[in-house]
Amino acid sequence: MSATVITYDSGMVRWEPNARGRLEQAAFELYVERGFEQTTVAEIALRAGLTERTFFRHFADKREVLFAAAAGLEEFFVTALAGAPETATPIDAVAVALDAVGALMQEHSGTIRQRAAIIAANAELQERELIKLASLSSALAEALRRRGVTDPAASLTAEAGVAVFRIAFGRWISDADQRDLQYFMRESLAELKAVTAAGAAAPAAPR
Amino acid sequence: MSATVITYDSGMVRWEPNARGRLEQAAFELYVERGFEQTTVAEIALRAGLTERTFFRHFADKREVLFAAAAGLEEFFVTALAGAPETATPIDAVAVALDAVGALMQEHSGTIRQRAAIIAANAELQERELIKLASLSSALAEALRRRGVTDPAASLTAEAGVAVFRIAFGRWISDADQRDLQYFMRESLAELKAVTAAGAAAPAAPR
Repeated sequence: MSATVITYDSGMVRWEPNARGRLEQAAFELYVERGFEQTTVAEIALRAGLTERTFFRHFADKREVLFAAAAGLEEFFVTALAGAPETATPIDAVAVALDAVGALMQEHSGTIRQRAAIIAANAELQERELIKLASLSSALAEALRRRGVTDPAASLTAEAGVAVFRIAFGRWISDADQRDLQYFMRESLAELKAVTAAGAAAPAAPR
Repeated sequence: MSATVITYDSGMVRWEPNARGRLEQAAFELYVERGFEQTTVAEIALRAGLTERTFFRHFADKREVLFAAAAGLEEFFVTALAGAPETATPIDAVAVALDAVGALMQEHSGTIRQRAAIIAANAELQERELIKLASLSSALAEALRRRGVTDPAASLTAEAGVAVFRIAFGRWISDADQRDLQYFMRESLAELKAVTAAGAAAPAAPR
């Protein structure tokens, strides 16, 4: 996403510097102030000093404003996983990606915390978030398969990665000490390793 | 759920032997034959030989017919986890529960496969399924906390359990060899342990 976007209006080329970013910021402010349900697209456009038509050129609806970044995050996550050293085990490749994602999200900590509060207040938005996480898991499994990992290892490693991401994110959001997201990513991955290692040897599978 | 349910109609007590089960079966048949979207509550009631009023006494809507059992499954899962030996590690307690759930679901294999096919054909139903899985994860984490497991271990063990459940279920559904669900539960748990153990030692957490 560039900082400046050229949009077309009524056949005329108009400069609307960072229309997308302005719409996002206006939407987030209004969702926090009035609640997501109570905010209209007209109000978002007005606050951003843009038209409703411009809003709909950037976002399908007011919900999409909150989830547009999720697609970008998935892509970033997959790219980071693909960029892990070839020799890395699947879980280490996921660890590399979690580290990169943690660092990126930490930089946008303010917006992300605002967004999390908006989503936590609305059941429909929480459902949408779950869908995005399921999509992330599929994308990571696919990225692992491209690294030569077979199933079920690919799917399970991806699920493990998303589990660590979810738990770390939740702990980061509610952390009184304001520690970095990367800290919680590493802590949660280490904890997942510890809990799975603490079991008895797997029993013989039936049949 | 008992096999026979007494329902009240217009103030009169009527016997409707297993109304709930008949409605479920009629709904599943119609969802498979015509698709979920194309089936009405009136048609389900007609096929079951019951009234629409009786349907709504048992289910909030036609979607609920598919998910009523999910609440029962969550309760069964939690009870099985609570019943694991006190000395079991958290992941072993989850393994005990997965075994019990696998055995139970295997017994209802026909209905469960039918249900999975209905859900796979509809995006809205898939979303609802994700919500039920998120609810299952929270319930398992809570059950682990009641066993004295602290966080983040409780949440991560619960997430690991749900991940194993999801992957095992998917492999079972698409298995050409018709192996037991318990087989896939154990295979997937063993695989999760293997992938998490294959990583390097966790790097030092920043800060």
